[in-house]
Amino acid sequence: MSGIVVQTIERADPAVIDGLAACGVSTVHEAQGRTGLLAAYMRPIYTGARIAGSAVTISAPPGDNWMVHVAIEQIKAGDILVLAPTSPCEDGYFGDLLATSAQARGCRGLVIDAGVRDVRDLTEMGFPVWSKAISAQGTIKASLGSVNVPVVCAGAAVNPGDVIVADDDGVVCVPRATAAEVLAKAQARESNEGDKRARLAAGELGLDMYKMREKLAELGLKYV
Amino acid sequence: MSGIVVQTIERADPAVIDGLAACGVSTVHEAQGRTGLLAAYMRPIYTGARIAGSAVTISAPPGDNWMVHVAIEQIKAGDILVLAPTSPCEDGYFGDLLATSAQARGCRGLVIDAGVRDVRDLTEMGFPVWSKAISAQGTIKASLGSVNVPVVCAGAAVNPGDVIVADDDGVVCVPRATAAEVLAKAQARESNEGDKRARLAAGELGLDMYKMREKLAELGLKYV
Amino acid sequence: MSGIVVQTIERADPAVIDGLAACGVSTVHEAQGRTGLLAAYMRPIYTGARIAGSAVTISAPPGDNWMVHVAIEQIKAGDILVLAPTSPCEDGYFGDLLATSAQARGCRGLVIDAGVRDVRDLTEMGFPVWSKAISAQGTIKASLGSVNVPVVCAGAAVNPGDVIVADDDGVVCVPRATAAEVLAKAQARESNEGDKRARLAAGELGLDMYKMREKLAELGLKYV
Amino acid sequence: MSGIVVQTIERADPAVIDGLAACGVSTVHEAQGRTGLLAAYMRPIYTGARIAGSAVTISAPPGDNWMVHVAIEQIKAGDILVLAPTSPCEDGYFGDLLATSAQARGCRGLVIDAGVRDVRDLTEMGFPVWSKAISAQGTIKASLGSVNVPVVCAGAAVNPGDVIVADDDGVVCVPRATAAEVLAKAQARESNEGDKRARLAAGELGLDMYKMREKLAELGLKYV
Amino acid sequence: MSGIVVQTIERADPAVIDGLAACGVSTVHEAQGRTGLLAAYMRPIYTGARIAGSAVTISAPPGDNWMVHVAIEQIKAGDILVLAPTSPCEDGYFGDLLATSAQARGCRGLVIDAGVRDVRDLTEMGFPVWSKAISAQGTIKASLGSVNVPVVCAGAAVNPGDVIVADDDGVVCVPRATAAEVLAKAQARESNEGDKRARLAAGELGLDMYKMREKLAELGLKYV
Amino acid sequence: MSGIVVQTIERADPAVIDGLAACGVSTVHEAQGRTGLLAAYMRPIYTGARIAGSAVTISAPPGDNWMVHVAIEQIKAGDILVLAPTSPCEDGYFGDLLATSAQARGCRGLVIDAGVRDVRDLTEMGFPVWSKAISAQGTIKASLGSVNVPVVCAGAAVNPGDVIVADDDGVVCVPRATAAEVLAKAQARESNEGDKRARLAAGELGLDMYKMREKLAELGLKYV
Repeated sequence: MSGIVVQTIERADPAVIDGLAACGVSTVHEAQGRTGLLAAYMRPIYTGARIAGSAVTISAPPGDNWMVHVAIEQIKAGDILVLAPTSPCEDGYFGDLLATSAQARGCRGLVIDAGVRDVRDLTEMGFPVWSKAISAQGTIKASLGSVNVPVVCAGAAVNPGDVIVADDDGVVCVPRATAAEVLAKAQARESNEGDKRARLAAGELGLDMYKMREKLAELGLKYV
Repeated sequence: MSGIVVQTIERADPAVIDGLAACGVSTVHEAQGRTGLLAAYMRPIYTGARIAGSAVTISAPPGDNWMVHVAIEQIKAGDILVLAPTSPCEDGYFGDLLATSAQARGCRGLVIDAGVRDVRDLTEMGFPVWSKAISAQGTIKASLGSVNVPVVCAGAAVNPGDVIVADDDGVVCVPRATAAEVLAKAQARESNEGDKRARLAAGELGLDMYKMREKLAELGLKYV
Repeated sequence: MSGIVVQTIERADPAVIDGLAACGVSTVHEAQGRTGLLAAYMRPIYTGARIAGSAVTISAPPGDNWMVHVAIEQIKAGDILVLAPTSPCEDGYFGDLLATSAQARGCRGLVIDAGVRDVRDLTEMGFPVWSKAISAQGTIKASLGSVNVPVVCAGAAVNPGDVIVADDDGVVCVPRATAAEVLAKAQARESNEGDKRARLAAGELGLDMYKMREKLAELGLKYV
Repeated sequence: MSGIVVQTIERADPAVIDGLAACGVSTVHEAQGRTGLLAAYMRPIYTGARIAGSAVTISAPPGDNWMVHVAIEQIKAGDILVLAPTSPCEDGYFGDLLATSAQARGCRGLVIDAGVRDVRDLTEMGFPVWSKAISAQGTIKASLGSVNVPVVCAGAAVNPGDVIVADDDGVVCVPRATAAEVLAKAQARESNEGDKRARLAAGELGLDMYKMREKLAELGLKYV
Repeated sequence: MSGIVVQTIERADPAVIDGLAACGVSTVHEAQGRTGLLAAYMRPIYTGARIAGSAVTISAPPGDNWMVHVAIEQIKAGDILVLAPTSPCEDGYFGDLLATSAQARGCRGLVIDAGVRDVRDLTEMGFPVWSKAISAQGTIKASLGSVNVPVVCAGAAVNPGDVIVADDDGVVCVPRATAAEVLAKAQARESNEGDKRARLAAGELGLDMYKMREKLAELGLKYV
Repeated sequence: MSGIVVQTIERADPAVIDGLAACGVSTVHEAQGRTGLLAAYMRPIYTGARIAGSAVTISAPPGDNWMVHVAIEQIKAGDILVLAPTSPCEDGYFGDLLATSAQARGCRGLVIDAGVRDVRDLTEMGFPVWSKAISAQGTIKASLGSVNVPVVCAGAAVNPGDVIVADDDGVVCVPRATAAEVLAKAQARESNEGDKRARLAAGELGLDMYKMREKLAELGLKYV
């Protein structure tokens, strides 16, 4: 089942992808019914990045980063690499040389359920990574994996071409087919929030704004 | 046992609270006999904040943040929200809208044994949070919890009105009744430390300054 | 087996030590055959530090930092303290007073498979620490340990006088006897990387640069 | 705050205690409103034990089991030792000699948020232990802790004299003052369950037995 | 995206399912190219069970087991319940009453990326469960989830009707469409192993039996 | 540094080895000054085994068990395999075929800081394993490691020929050179314990037997 490179994948509309990036992970996650979130242990190597892109997926053996080289050839401008090891691993699959190569192809970042290294260089390059670990542990190039096959990455199913959105809150995967619809919902949420924020900032309580008091009383909440 | 909101809680003297903030977590923790520290997994979402305030406690079901809205109404200027889920959870109970509301009421920060989201916004707002996780995972508003009841948060018992001190070293809880006494001890420690720091900086050894050599020899320490 | 302080240890050539610092953890780790790396949970308290130094090792009981005082007397300029507790512990063995003392003796930093506190002060002082935890939890001075004996720290064997290299990627231990040889290999790797980086930045693929295509085809990689 | 031994504690009625043991942890936990449960990492060293008893609490430094000896003197027949370390620790505080001594005083078992050893002997003796770890790591007798003071053990607040119930499902703490009331509710639940079990065993669905269908439809559950 | 119950799912041939059970998890996992394995933290509540069945999947909110009742109605004889919470949770979703009901419908067991309780009863009933935790923590019935939708359970993608195989080595998911083919390969492996086992038992070395010596020498293995 | 097989190692006296097995892990660990213990996460796959043997060490890449085959040839009757992966891994390196082969060579068991599979078969064969995980995840045979080189296994330094003692309390490593001396101390402890056990069983308190009361009073223990 491994040893396959799928060369042609469909991607979402670039405008939709950029729109999702602008909304950010938490809003997008809400907009698609609170699904698609990767595990909370996936943390950015530096704060402040907010990206979206099409997933080029990598299924790689533990401690073997050969398929990253293979995947980089499949990158189109705006893509994000998504690496899932075939068993739990925190080795440093990816460093500054691979980042240089990926960035040269237009890659926007890496999401890896394993380790990354050369994080100072990556930070200086402005190449964002969300990972399970930071580890200098080197990897080998001995065994095949696959590129652009469905993977489960940090607990979320990711298909090649799905839209990955990542920021300081984590990483969420939006299926390609529903990306436009999710964007519309996310933007609706956002336009909605400005007014709420202003009212809350002015001291209005959520209890009143969302009309929660009656429902709470009904359930038996007691003020003592 | 849930479904209760205690509206009147006693708070420590504001001057004592601010004094404890100035001393910081490590000094306060020492001053009260090394008790009251929350688990080390409670980390700030950004560095540099050092706050103290009266605990407004929240006991909330896993994945349900309804009680946060209820708790915000109970906040007085200078308070800190302390949320303990009724079972382990890392969902993102709290984000920028709730922070806006809490900040409008004078809340100084949040301590949550679960997840938080919108961390970029919270950082920009200067609303500090100490949490177990950063997670975009949304929560619901379906079940009751309680506000201002005793809780165990990250391994420490917290009563409403206790003084919470939080900084880059973590979070400590000081019982309200002993807060003034703990402050006095903490300040004594601090005045004490300036002289020690200067002597150590000048090259004097702790072994000599604290007169440890004899005791070590007695216990059998061997130099070879 | 505890209660021993070894006063005379051999150290590597200072020029070699500084050379290793300049190469950084990931390069050094590769140069010595991917050995000697400490566990990935060892993280710096602030980013940007890159140091190397001779290990002054400490074997300490859980929750007892007495031996740190003993070890500081053994420090020579350029050394790094390496503390391994005798059983798993995340208490804060080390804070600003000890850092002041260690820094006054020329210590370059601390590597501790346990906790550290006063991290704001340490950051301001520019005293870097790589630790398993940040914890205000205080420790006692009641029991003996040893200084400058072989330890296992965060999964790596460290002998006194070994060269410790630490940066944002983690911590690696280089045995003193092979330090010069490892430095030579690390520098060879580095001079090698400039050319590769330039070619990758220009868009050349690793698949071509490293001539991987034939070997991949041989193993059966299928492009579909 | 440490160095105290409280010699006189109140205990619940022995009949209530034994009644709670018969109900078991899950039922008792439900009966008291789903509170008081210790963390799920607290596991029995062997299966099949189901006990209840009055808590004799121990607050002990990490890696120091001296207070266990002190606590054993305070045991009355039917008590359970509850040990909480003052910071996270998995050392083996307790083994066959201490179990022999405790058992001779009528102790029914140990609940320890740390490690235990000699588990083969303890199993043969029929002395049950719920612990965070099994570890041969020895402890010392150098520092004071306290006996029969309030502790937080594995995330639950335990006061001396509270009723501890423990079985294969874990450990729950029932405050002494409400023990009789909780027992009554637990027994009511149990008598209730026999009928339900029979109906479910006969093939009746919970959906019908609990009349859930209408509520589910109302919330929008769709059968497709 | 939640609130859906799919009532008609396709299942694999019962003979294929039972054949997979007989082969066991490790052999089946090998036979399908080392894919489909659930995380190693999924452990059986008692040893010795070896089952296979068609997955009836449940996506449930944290701490809410309502959908289990809904799912039980969808069980056909020989099925296995597979529950994935929508965010990490270790509450006890399932106990003896639900097991009684599921068993009455012919359910062979439960695979749950969360907690289970009443484990003594379940063991006596012979109802096997593979779970992330054992926890008495009760759950509520307040929110919808879905039944028989695709889920990610403990890191593996599971579709309704896939074949779940579980034993003391863990849990593996076999896609329905390839189940017969996987069984054939698994049985081929098994028939193959008898001869190997006999030769190894007689003292023949794997190095010779698998003719590894030449390849190892080629790679540079040195005997010293 | 990898790719080496050391064929000649020194072993301790068989009588010493068997003597250490009879004492068990906790006693041996105490007898050698509380050193050499492997991490508490190393658990036996079944209870009741108590073994000792000479370490045949394996350093293996993550997910690659080739070196186990190489190591088996180096086994002499009474040896124990000790496998340390070069980076953290929980794959199932070892199953019933390898156990059959190892057992045929007189191997007494396996200690592995990774995963093991076929645990039902291993249990039936009486081949004990202490591991970090139970996992069906298969491994490959692609890269070299080393046999009979010094390793760090689960936090403990192990040299080839050291004596490994393992039982239900965990695993301890005794350096070959001091094995006889450690055995003598362990046996002295044991002969000592019989009398203590009898006195404690008769109700004498440790406080009195060990004459602790005076020392406790001196340190300030207060009975209230």
